[in-house]
This record gives sequence, C-alpha cells and structure tokens, in this order.
Amino acid sequence: YGGNLKSGEHILGRFDPCNGYNWNRLYHWNPHCVENFVEKNQDLEWPELKLAFKDHLQEEILSALNQKQTLGQSYGKELCLYLQKWAHQADCVLDLHTGPISAHHLYAPVSAQESSTYFNIPYVLLIPMEFAGALDEATFMPWWHLKETFKKVTNRDIPMDFEGYTVELGSEAQVDFTQAQKDVESLLSYFNHKGVIKTKVEYRLEMERLGCYLKDYISIFAKEAGLLEYQDVLGKKVKAQDILGKLLDFSKVTDQDHIEDAIIHITSPTDGVVICHPPISTIHQGEELFKIFSKTFVL
Amino acid sequence: YGGNLKSGEHILGRFDPCNGYNWNRLYHWNPHCVENFVEKNQDLEWPELKLAFKDHLQEEILSALNQKQTLGQSYGKELCLYLQKWAHQADCVLDLHTGPISAHHLYAPVSAQESSTYFNIPYVLLIPMEFAGALDEATFMPWWHLKETFKKVTNRDIPMDFEGYTVELGSEAQVDFTQAQKDVESLLSYFNHKGVIKTKVEYRLEMERLGCYLKDYISIFAKEAGLLEYQDVLGKKVKAQDILGKLLDFSKVTDQDHIEDAIIHITSPTDGVVICHPPISTIHQGEELFKIFSKTFVL
Amino acid sequence: YGGNLKSGEHILGRFDPCNGYNWNRLYHWNPHCVENFVEKNQDLEWPELKLAFKDHLQEEILSALNQKQTLGQSYGKELCLYLQKWAHQADCVLDLHTGPISAHHLYAPVSAQESSTYFNIPYVLLIPMEFAGALDEATFMPWWHLKETFKKVTNRDIPMDFEGYTVELGSEAQVDFTQAQKDVESLLSYFNHKGVIKTKVEYRLEMERLGCYLKDYISIFAKEAGLLEYQDVLGKKVKAQDILGKLLDFSKVTDQDHIEDAIIHITSPTDGVVICHPPISTIHQGEELFKIFSKTFVL
Amino acid sequence: YGGNLKSGEHILGRFDPCNGYNWNRLYHWNPHCVENFVEKNQDLEWPELKLAFKDHLQEEILSALNQKQTLGQSYGKELCLYLQKWAHQADCVLDLHTGPISAHHLYAPVSAQESSTYFNIPYVLLIPMEFAGALDEATFMPWWHLKETFKKVTNRDIPMDFEGYTVELGSEAQVDFTQAQKDVESLLSYFNHKGVIKTKVEYRLEMERLGCYLKDYISIFAKEAGLLEYQDVLGKKVKAQDILGKLLDFSKVTDQDHIEDAIIHITSPTDGVVICHPPISTIHQGEELFKIFSKTFVL
Repeated sequence: YGGNLKSGEHILGRFDPCNGYNWNRLYHWNPHCVENFVEKNQDLEWPELKLAFKDHLQEEILSALNQKQTLGQSYGKELCLYLQKWAHQADCVLDLHTGPISAHHLYAPVSAQESSTYFNIPYVLLIPMEFAGALDEATFMPWWHLKETFKKVTNRDIPMDFEGYTVELGSEAQVDFTQAQKDVESLLSYFNHKGVIKTKVEYRLEMERLGCYLKDYISIFAKEAGLLEYQDVLGKKVKAQDILGKLLDFSKVTDQDHIEDAIIHITSPTDGVVICHPPISTIHQGEELFKIFSKTFVL
Repeated sequence: YGGNLKSGEHILGRFDPCNGYNWNRLYHWNPHCVENFVEKNQDLEWPELKLAFKDHLQEEILSALNQKQTLGQSYGKELCLYLQKWAHQADCVLDLHTGPISAHHLYAPVSAQESSTYFNIPYVLLIPMEFAGALDEATFMPWWHLKETFKKVTNRDIPMDFEGYTVELGSEAQVDFTQAQKDVESLLSYFNHKGVIKTKVEYRLEMERLGCYLKDYISIFAKEAGLLEYQDVLGKKVKAQDILGKLLDFSKVTDQDHIEDAIIHITSPTDGVVICHPPISTIHQGEELFKIFSKTFVL
Repeated sequence: YGGNLKSGEHILGRFDPCNGYNWNRLYHWNPHCVENFVEKNQDLEWPELKLAFKDHLQEEILSALNQKQTLGQSYGKELCLYLQKWAHQADCVLDLHTGPISAHHLYAPVSAQESSTYFNIPYVLLIPMEFAGALDEATFMPWWHLKETFKKVTNRDIPMDFEGYTVELGSEAQVDFTQAQKDVESLLSYFNHKGVIKTKVEYRLEMERLGCYLKDYISIFAKEAGLLEYQDVLGKKVKAQDILGKLLDFSKVTDQDHIEDAIIHITSPTDGVVICHPPISTIHQGEELFKIFSKTFVL
Repeated sequence: YGGNLKSGEHILGRFDPCNGYNWNRLYHWNPHCVENFVEKNQDLEWPELKLAFKDHLQEEILSALNQKQTLGQSYGKELCLYLQKWAHQADCVLDLHTGPISAHHLYAPVSAQESSTYFNIPYVLLIPMEFAGALDEATFMPWWHLKETFKKVTNRDIPMDFEGYTVELGSEAQVDFTQAQKDVESLLSYFNHKGVIKTKVEYRLEMERLGCYLKDYISIFAKEAGLLEYQDVLGKKVKAQDILGKLLDFSKVTDQDHIEDAIIHITSPTDGVVICHPPISTIHQGEELFKIFSKTFVL
C-alpha cells in the first residue's frame, strides 16, 4: 500500500496517508499481560515456561484483535497485530528496513549487544528496554518484562532468551543486487551464531563495529530553508565542527559579489558517525537533515 | 502551509507532509517546570503568584526555544513553541478548530465544566488533566499542576484560574458567514461570562448542553472497504443499533438479484450523539468512520 | 488505483500521481484508420459494413497494443486501450462519471441530440465531432468519420448508428442509494428508447431539458485566494450578475469595522445554469470555481 | 509553490496538484498574431521590424492577460503569461531545468543547431518548429512564423534572429556547487558566442557533441512492476540489447532456487545514449523508465 502511494516519481512510503501514522509505530504492548502470566506460572521449568509464554503472547494478540471487533480499528494497527501474532512465535525477530539516504546500521536491544556483532553491520544503535511502537520493541519487551517480573516476584533468574532487531539495509530508493547478496550473508552469519542454521562458510566479516546508545543518537534540523549540497560524509566518522552540508539560502542572496554570504555551513555538533540524511536537496525549515551516532564505542 | 498542500481540489491540512506529524499535537509540556517554581515562590500572594507564574512559563518556553538552538527542531514544534509563548500570557485560551464533517462541539477541561456552558455549543467533551500534545492541554496543564503541587507541598489551596478550550466550529471544508456570526456570538457569550468584555446583549442561548467524558468518546472504524451512504445522524442523538451508514462492499456483490447482501449496515454500538464522520464516501478498510459521544449527561 | 490514492480523508482520484495525466483523457483515436477501411469496403451493405467496421476497430486497438509491445506505454494509456477494445464492440457507450460537487448532466454528441432527451437528466452538453481524449469521443469519432468519409469518397449516405455519452451522475464524494435507483431508471429509459431492453414501465420522466454547446460551457477561475461561501446555485438557473459565491480574502482585511471590504462577490458573467464547483471552501488563486452552461436552449 | 508541495521527504515539483497540469506546458502561442503583423509591416527594414515585432508580442501577451480578466484563468497559465511577457523582450531565452535522474542535455530548435554547440553540453535534442506548450517553443515560434510568413506573403527573406533553449542541468534532487560553476561557464560560453558578453577566457570546451532529433528520442516504459536495479548507463552510449536495468518482479518469484527467473532484464531497443531515468527503484507498471537518444550524429 505504501509503495502504491506515488507522488510524482516518488512514494509516500512509511506514513498512512489518511492519518499520518507511521506504519512502523503501531505495534501492541500491554505490560499487564506479563504480571498475570507470572503469577500463574511460577513453578514451570524454563523450557515449559518459554512455550507457555509464547502461547500466552498469542492469546494476548488474539484478545487485542477480538477487543477491536466491536468498533474496528485503524488499518495500520490491524496489520501490526497480524504481523506481531506471527512474530511472537519466534525466538528472534528481524525487521528489515531501509532509510531515506542511509548507511547500514542496526537497532539492537542493549541485552543483545554481543549477538549484534554477528551481523556484518558496522554501526549498532543500542536501545533501552522501552516501548516506542516498533516491532523489535514490541517483541522483546514481553521477554524482558518476564525476566524482570520473575526476579521481582519470585527472585528467580530466568534467561533473556529472545532478540529483536531492526536491520537498516541502506537507502530506500536504491536497489543493488550485489549489496543484497552481502546483506543475506550478514543475516546468515547471525543465524549461524544463533544456531538457526549451520553453515560451513564463515559469513562473519572482520570489521570495526561501533555502538551508540539511543540517547546519543542526534538529529540536526534545518534552521533555514534552501538548497543543500551534501558533503561526502554518509557512513563516515566526522569530528565536531566538520562540515556536513552547505545550504544555499536564497533569502540571503543580495548581490552577485557576495554569493558566499548566502551559503550556510551545516556542521557536526559532535564527533560521531553520520548515519542518514534526506534524499533531496530542496530543504524546508525544520527538516531533519543529519542523524549522527555520537559517543560511539567499539563493540 | 497546511492550506497550500493541495491534492486535487482538497488540502492535506492537519499533517506535516514531511513526517506525518499532526500540527496540533506538538505543543510543549515539562512537568518539572512547576515543581521548581513552587519551591521558590511558596509565600507569594495569589495576584503576585499568578504574575510570577506567567513569567515563569515565558522562561520555560524561551528555554525550550534556546535548547533547540544547537540542533534545530522540526518546523511544527517551532511553530507550536511560538504560539504557546503567546498563549501563556493569557488567562483563557481558545483554540479554534474545524473537523472533517463535524457538529459543533467543545473540548473543555473537567475543571471548567461550568464555564463551558457559556458557549452556545451543545456538545462538550470533558477532558482530564492529562497531556496529549494539544494547545488547550499545554496551556491548562501548568496551572493545574501549580494548584496540585501547592496543595501537596504546602497544603495551600490556590485557585485554578485558567481555562483552555478547543472550540470545534463544524465542518472544515464549508464556510458559512451566517453561521460564523453565530459562532462569534457564542465566543462573546463566554467572554462576557469571564468578564473579558461587558456586553449589553445577552448572547448566551438557552439550549440543552450535553457533556461526555473523553474516555466515553467512541470511534467506529471501517471493517470493510466500500462506498458509504451516510444517514442523517450528524449532531443528532442516536440509540444503540441505529443505522449510521450503509456500506456497499463491492467484493460481496455476486449477482444482481442479491445486491442487498453487499450492503453492510454500520450501526451505533451505544446510545449517544454522532459528532463527526469523514467527508467522502470512498472508504478504506480501517478508516475512522463515526465519532460518538456516549454516556452523555446534561450539563 | 485512483480510489486508493488517499491524501488525508480525500482521494486524488482522476490524476495519475506519477505524471499528472487525467485517466479519462488518454483514449486512442487514429483518423487514418477510417480512410483505409472505406477504400476496401465500399460495396458492403450496411449490416455487413457495420460488422466489418467493428472488426476493423478491434484490429486498430490490437495494433495499438502491439505497437507498444517494444517500448511499453504508460499505465493509463494501456488501461484506456483495454477499455476501448471492449467498448468498440457496442452500439452505444455510456461512460458513468461523477464530478467534484456537481449537478447531474450529460455529455452528448450533437448527432445524438434527440436520443439524449431519453435520459432523465435536465442538462445536456452537446459536443462537436472532435477528439479531446475521452471515451465517448473515442468511440463515436470512428463512426462519424465513417459516415463523412463514405459521403466524401462515394457520395453514399450511411447512418450514424452509434452513440457515446459521458453521464455525469452528481457529486463524486457522496453516495446516495435512493438517487442511484433513480439514475438506474434514467439509464433504463434510454436503453428502452434504443431497444436494448423492452420495459413495460415508462421510465422517461417529463422534465425541462436544457441543451448547451460545448463552446458555451464557461469556467470561472478565482482571481484571488481566500475562503469561499458557496451560494445555493448548484444545478439552478442564474442571471448575469447573480452572486455565485462570496470570497473572504484575508489579505484585504484591514480592520474590524471594514470586514465587508474583504469579501469579494463572485458573480455570474452570463445567464445560465451552474453545473459544478469545488468541494471545499479553501480556494487558491487560479482555481476553477464555477462551471456554467450559457446560451442554453430547450431540447 | 512546487517546491513546497512535500510528500514525505520529496516534492511533487512539476505538476499543479489541483489539476495535474505540468507547470512547464502552459505557455501561450497564437499563430494568427503573426499573420496580422506581417500584413501591416511589410515594408519595415529589419532593425525596425524586429523592434516592432517585439512590441507586437508584448501586445499579444497583454491581450491574452486582458482576455482572461472576465473569467480568470488557472494559476499556472497566469504565471506562464507573466514569464512569457518578460521573455519576449529578449533575443535568446534559456529555460533552466533539471530532470529526475538526468544527464546534462539541451533542447535546441533545429534552426539553432550551430549555436547549440557553444554550450558545454554533450547531448543536444533538436526540436522541430512545433508548439507543445514549453517556454522555448513559445518564444521561438513567433520568430519562425514571422520568417516563414514573410517568405510566403512577400517572398522576402528575413533572418531567424531568435534562439530559445531548455537547458537541462542534471538531476533535480542533487545540488553540487562545483558542477554549478561549470554550468555557469557553459552559459557564459554561449553568451560570448552570441555577443551578449565579451569574455577574455575561452569557456567553450572541446568535447564530442551529439545531436538527436526529437522524433528519435525514445521512452521505455515498465511492462511489469517491481524493484529496479539501474545499471551504470546514465549519460553513456549503449548498444542495442545492452542491459539498462534489472527488474525484480515479485509476482514471478516461485521458489528460492529460481530467483533468477523473477529478474527481468530491461534492454535498450537501439544504439543510443541514456539521458534520464526515475529517481527510485520502486517501479509501477507503465512508468517511464529510460529516455534514450537514438540515431545520434556528431554536431
């Protein structure tokens, strides 16, 4: 549906055109569903507990779907519930994404920091145990709460045996079959690590992998409108004050001898790595220009 | 800007086309700003306290504007901060709105239930002291927290001397100067009540005014796509099971002798009043169809 | 596809979002296809000639579809060719349309003026034997050229035994099943007249039917932007200088005592009938506001 | 206005969103305006004739603007008339454009073939003396008709002393200040050749310049929808059957061992140069994919 919403040659993509909702922020999370479960299943061994919890999550989704039978619900929420119903059967969930113009990067829960290095992806955004509507969060939150609630209620330590990721595979408008092959190998490397498959080939690549906490993921917005020349910084390390882009602000053009005065340098406020930027040079005031990993650390 | 975003004869209106944000849900609210203020100003008399708090709110907004100087911010958030800076100078704030196809109704905080009856608006939605991003909430929340915090910290009762409303003046696509004159008189009636103006004319109309709590404001979504014939229910009382619309679902049309089987009756799940519905008959699965005041009570 | 292109609650509808083409103006017409046919089939009697010409039109469309096999063609043009292939098998073609906010009216070729009065539609736009890309034109043009070419080449008079109409069934955003029933009866009345069906019921209604030539179909465009209050003129007779709408031009609002100076009266430049206008009151400079039948005559 | 019509990060750009018109195809051309002029000014010498004709063109535009006073006109047409009024004062008109993803190329009238080689642009599309609504055509057509009409009516040869171009400066979404500097030098080279300026620097670059007639400018449309990997062919010479893109048609994916069967090779139907293609990989059926100069020749 998103891909059909053409506007000129482009597509609207990630927003429901009826109500502006981001299709990827409508997943379901009910914290109370864990409390009830723990009270009733304190004595189960881990393997049985795990299966029982998966059943419990299915019931939670069915209940959410049924609850909406009377009044209906938005198309996006319904799609999310169906996807989530499917996803809750798994031990790990990979939500494959692309961004506007974007370097490869990975959203990983802090609890999966080590596993995250088995993807061949150099930039890892470590996200806290909080819910903001995305699929990875919606699927790892129940398992995290299960572990926390067991500890609190019974003082029992159970494993955090679930991993949910959003895998950002680069720029949304560009298909590259050679890169796609590498991306598949990156996923195979992770699956191999998790024992989902057994490959003879070692798909994991040696590379520097940098982590960044979500709170240190910085957005720079346009203070003026204009035409933006992007510098060659995508997926690269930058220093504070490095120029990321040059914005020609027509309202500042006064005469031909001082055209340079109308060109504003957009600089990085921090050392970091530039992860993504918009796909076009026509910039409105207040547009999100550059997203930067700051305070990175080697994983 | 919203009015310029034409798509065919229509306008996109209330969404930022860049990021899907609803322009009306980006206002600023920082609960901590009240705590600090109370600690420092416990001993002021109410008139001084009120002035001091207004100054304090100006500083809060300036601080939010400054805080964003480094990284910039979205266009919508900036517009909201500027509007809010202006609004915090007032004792009452009216945010004038229109809806898709909509009856006149009023969003009023529960604390202003009595004052709300001085508008000539028959349907009043009473909203709790919670923040969901709108201007009315962003302006009454600080005063409510001020009152609550004084009570908690000093056990002193101070007045709730601020009112913020969203005044829904009917259907967004239709201009009617005669109705506009009545709407002005409705506002004058409220201003007269508040002592903002002194009118010799009694603008307040005798009418039944019905209240409804936000939690009882029900939305019905489309379970199927199709062409919808709206019944004559807008702004009217309905009973549970009353037909609100008839949806022709083409996928259910099998032969000419059973066309009626393809027409689905959308019924009200409750007694109530129909407040708004979409402007067109082309309905997608999951669209919000009817919004209904349920559990209404006379104000 | 058009109905899926939502923008807020509305749909883009009649334009291909990729290239701005109106889906209804992409039909095929090759004048040379008639000349060749006449030369080869001069001696056929009318019944055989008619069948032969229908076969010939099928070949013309197949040829157009094949011709595009190498390079492909736009989605809209392909859809039009497939529709047209189907339509060329018929003796009369009705293209059922709706407009923005619109009175019922009928596009009829001048050659079908008499038949056009068998629809229960009060306003008939008589269009000349010219091609502007629409389906009715694309289907009646070949038969008109056949008649003209026979006359020119062989001095033989053959019948104009084809009728193509665009039937405008009112406002596009509003579904009304009661009106739809009347519209069906209007079509049945025409089919009865043409002998397509034999009904015992007399569906034809007594009514004044007014004709207007396409050259006298007038559009009024907005000279200023603003908020427009439509007067109650849709589908009604107006006199020259009658007020059709009142436009509030905010740029002309100077002070509260002279608000009337900012209201521009949009008047009819002619006696006539108002056939359609936009669905919303938010008007941009240069928007098409009112379309009017002028120089009408009783059919 | 076009740049403000955001849809996600992109802009709608070249279409009026109200009516689908391409802003660049609404210019004015009235062939009869030349005939009248020639009859009245047969005896003027060329310098006077030229000035008189420029005045005449101003009057023609003023007349078109006035003619529309009663009924108004579309916003796009009005903008075009104002631009054209300005352009008719000149001896040469350059309409600076960009395309989706596009190589630099030049639309030049056949009458300006030699001058066209003074731009530093390697691909020149030679367009006939016909009008399709663009600014270059709208400005050179009067002068061409003047020359033709003088020849026909008086057998006198007058110069074709006007040149109108559309200068395509590459991809619309990408700003590159270094390339912009080169583009300026390209224009200076042309102005120097025409005597508009006198530069000491020789801006004209040695390069192969290829011409192509408009009738040989080929468009390839998508026969299937899918994800398209563009090959590195933009602005490059290709041979017939060279692969231009690889389209992954998901509807053809049956099993993992035959994924290659779902990849369709889009090949060039001809020797030529690839001039432009869409900016994104999400392709709908019937989209224009590649535009190719065929039957090129060295200028």
